[in-house]
Amino acid sequence: MLPFKELITINRLLPAPVYQQIANQLISLIHEGIIKPGTALPSSRQMAEILSVHRKTIVAAYEELSAQDWISSTLRKGVTVSKDLPEIKPRSFKALIKKPPYHGDTPFGFSGVSISSAAAAPAAEHRFIINDGFPDARIAPVEMLLKEYNRLFRIPAVQRKIVYGELAGAASLRMALAKFLSETRGLNISENNMLVTRGAQMAIYIVARMIIKPGTTVIVGEPNYGLANMLFLNCGARLVRVAVDENGIDVDAIEKICKKKKPGLLYVVPHHHHPTTVTLSAQRRMKLLQLIRAYNFPVIEDDYDYDYHYNSSPILPLASADHDGNVIYIGSIGKSFATTVKTGYMVAPQNFIQAALQVRRLIDIRGDNLMEEALAALFESGDMQKHLKKSLKLYHERRDMFCSLLEQELGNRIRFQKPAGGMALWASFHKKNPLQVVSQKASAMGLFMGDGSFYNTGPVNYNSLRMGFASLNEREMRESVEVLKKVLK
Amino acid sequence: MLPFKELITINRLLPAPVYQQIANQLISLIHEGIIKPGTALPSSRQMAEILSVHRKTIVAAYEELSAQDWISSTLRKGVTVSKDLPEIKPRSFKALIKKPPYHGDTPFGFSGVSISSAAAAPAAEHRFIINDGFPDARIAPVEMLLKEYNRLFRIPAVQRKIVYGELAGAASLRMALAKFLSETRGLNISENNMLVTRGAQMAIYIVARMIIKPGTTVIVGEPNYGLANMLFLNCGARLVRVAVDENGIDVDAIEKICKKKKPGLLYVVPHHHHPTTVTLSAQRRMKLLQLIRAYNFPVIEDDYDYDYHYNSSPILPLASADHDGNVIYIGSIGKSFATTVKTGYMVAPQNFIQAALQVRRLIDIRGDNLMEEALAALFESGDMQKHLKKSLKLYHERRDMFCSLLEQELGNRIRFQKPAGGMALWASFHKKNPLQVVSQKASAMGLFMGDGSFYNTGPVNYNSLRMGFASLNEREMRESVEVLKKVLK
Repeated sequence: MLPFKELITINRLLPAPVYQQIANQLISLIHEGIIKPGTALPSSRQMAEILSVHRKTIVAAYEELSAQDWISSTLRKGVTVSKDLPEIKPRSFKALIKKPPYHGDTPFGFSGVSISSAAAAPAAEHRFIINDGFPDARIAPVEMLLKEYNRLFRIPAVQRKIVYGELAGAASLRMALAKFLSETRGLNISENNMLVTRGAQMAIYIVARMIIKPGTTVIVGEPNYGLANMLFLNCGARLVRVAVDENGIDVDAIEKICKKKKPGLLYVVPHHHHPTTVTLSAQRRMKLLQLIRAYNFPVIEDDYDYDYHYNSSPILPLASADHDGNVIYIGSIGKSFATTVKTGYMVAPQNFIQAALQVRRLIDIRGDNLMEEALAALFESGDMQKHLKKSLKLYHERRDMFCSLLEQELGNRIRFQKPAGGMALWASFHKKNPLQVVSQKASAMGLFMGDGSFYNTGPVNYNSLRMGFASLNEREMRESVEVLKKVLK
Repeated sequence: MLPFKELITINRLLPAPVYQQIANQLISLIHEGIIKPGTALPSSRQMAEILSVHRKTIVAAYEELSAQDWISSTLRKGVTVSKDLPEIKPRSFKALIKKPPYHGDTPFGFSGVSISSAAAAPAAEHRFIINDGFPDARIAPVEMLLKEYNRLFRIPAVQRKIVYGELAGAASLRMALAKFLSETRGLNISENNMLVTRGAQMAIYIVARMIIKPGTTVIVGEPNYGLANMLFLNCGARLVRVAVDENGIDVDAIEKICKKKKPGLLYVVPHHHHPTTVTLSAQRRMKLLQLIRAYNFPVIEDDYDYDYHYNSSPILPLASADHDGNVIYIGSIGKSFATTVKTGYMVAPQNFIQAALQVRRLIDIRGDNLMEEALAALFESGDMQKHLKKSLKLYHERRDMFCSLLEQELGNRIRFQKPAGGMALWASFHKKNPLQVVSQKASAMGLFMGDGSFYNTGPVNYNSLRMGFASLNEREMRESVEVLKKVLK
């Protein structure tokens, strides 16, 4: 007899009643040819003893099986598995248990991403993290947001609204954002120019899918935001890399390219460039706008970090100027809030937004409209703006503190410019301190830092790192710098 | 002199100081050529009067502009705009105000979705909604979830963990799901076979991107889940439609196709088929498994609705049987919870999951790892299972109530089979009651219902509708049926 006790497991915490669980597992064994058609099963009394359950539980299970024609029950033969099932070549159940279908590779081929990079992440042992430039989640008004979420959730009108929801994102958030962007970025837009996405990355993804075909020329800065390059390449783009210096991307080089052949797309990060933190100068912006108007090509302006500018007023984005509708403006609320509340947006002419909606629908239908309503409430109450103001002040102080500390303690070993804004500085290390080695040594001492590979988006190894100061308080800064002093030559 | 009072707006609620807002807007006007190089600006005293601010605010604004080389200030000439800016051909500022760049169409072309359909949605005036078959959000333990989210958010170790997070989804949730799926679906998997996504749709999207190339043959049922067809077509698939009858998809027809040429992909919904609600019979499942093993082609098993089965035990999914790793199993937690908590998952061999991670990373990097941790906690505490058990009981009652009510009041006007499970029934209407007309009339009487177009995925107009009963309480059912009695002939 088969070892039913080992083959059948019962879990009383599950929704499915015990008799169903038993019936399911017997069906499975028949499926697999472990129990062959025509064989006899133990009587209900015997099976109840084997599985340590009440007899009526087995009776119910057998009734299930009988109702689905898996077994028949006669006085003479007892309970037997139906003969009318297709003969299945059985795998030995030992083989079944040892090599379940998900324990090997797929038998079929598939394509993933042509270029990818491992995403290193901190482990539990790391006491300090120098991150890529993320906000300090500890100061985000998450509790306020969740309270609002819960409050809205209980309102019947809202409950009805979110059943189908809004593809473009909750109208209240799009309106609040349109207003906020008008006032802070000089954008003249309505909520119909906006699509709310799961973070800025999804917005970039959607635009890439709509504009890039295999062979499309895409101009990017070098170095660049790594996930943008990977995404464009995965869409089949031909990447043309243009140098980024202390004034931003080389606009004269872009002009040379345009004069030969108009690009299919330009991706640019004019504020607090990723990774170098530089800002595109006023003169270069104006020249770039002339090129955009003259040659009429689409531009993704990734302005993920507009709100944190410390030195002078932030220069207005390209999107606020005269670009004839060529500039698709992308930003992020999450970047100003906490990295788990990934909410971004795309600003574009309405015809583009309407098409983008449909593309987005295929990806994940829509966002969390309720979370969007809650975020809108924080804008309307002024709490979001207050939070931004408070973060701006704090991150300004932290920038100054971190830069002084680094200058003081490691000025001769790390090269960096104090950034005009943003949440990270761009630090270069001498080749006697290769980042792969440095980060491993630091890790052993409890400090997580990147190994810089993410930023090597071209042929050059910059041996440089974005060092995020926004999420470090004073103690964490000092302790991190202490570790760096020990691991750097 | 230019009408500075009209051209410059000040908002004291914003993070940016007033002097910065003024400086920004002056720069903008210079950008646009409204204020030409070499022109004189009002003195700080004059400007302060025009804008109704303190003189020192204007002094600060002018200092900003001067620091950025937009203006120079001399005793003799006063404040003048720098001459060394490129000459810009100005648009008349009236034209600027009337036709901002986002108010027209894009000047460039782009591609959206080849086939799309309008997504109708309820409006505020609708008192009742017959939906596609969504769970009743009112009974979901959202407050418990948010409490857990907030609790986790305050834990320093968790805060550190979510800075970079986990691409595949929080390990705790993948482990809880792997355990849950092992016990309820008979899947023998580990957390490394799982990728958590933003709902089942994202999982289907990722698989489609990895497997479908232009020209790939994809077998689907007819009718089918509309967004799946749209997605596959958008990837360039050649759709082969196979009829779905009361026993599910026609597996003999699939065999005929395989004998000619192996398909690139099969998409199947064996439990509570969308839209028809039928379940693939045991015999057809076994035959399908034989075909899968014999011809070795990938299968998406969309099991979005496994947990709500009322009649007998749910038949185990294809994924739990011997498929050699060909079946990619997709499901949803959100479908059992509330439509805003869109969390789905993909189960596949590890090599496929590793590649899928990288594809997902380009879309939106990762999910809300904190929300995933909170969901995991609900599994671990047993609260999720309790909720499923309670929902199962409630939806079973509602199915019975709704079916009796429809039979009783509209039995001669609506044709439907009582579904064995799921959250909706599939109702066919006589052609004298075209759904487009019926739904408009119902809408005028406060009842939102679909017009059925979403389900016409082939050449046939089924004039049928999924009628979701799970989110209707008794009163809502009766009132909805009252409206239907009035609008149906």
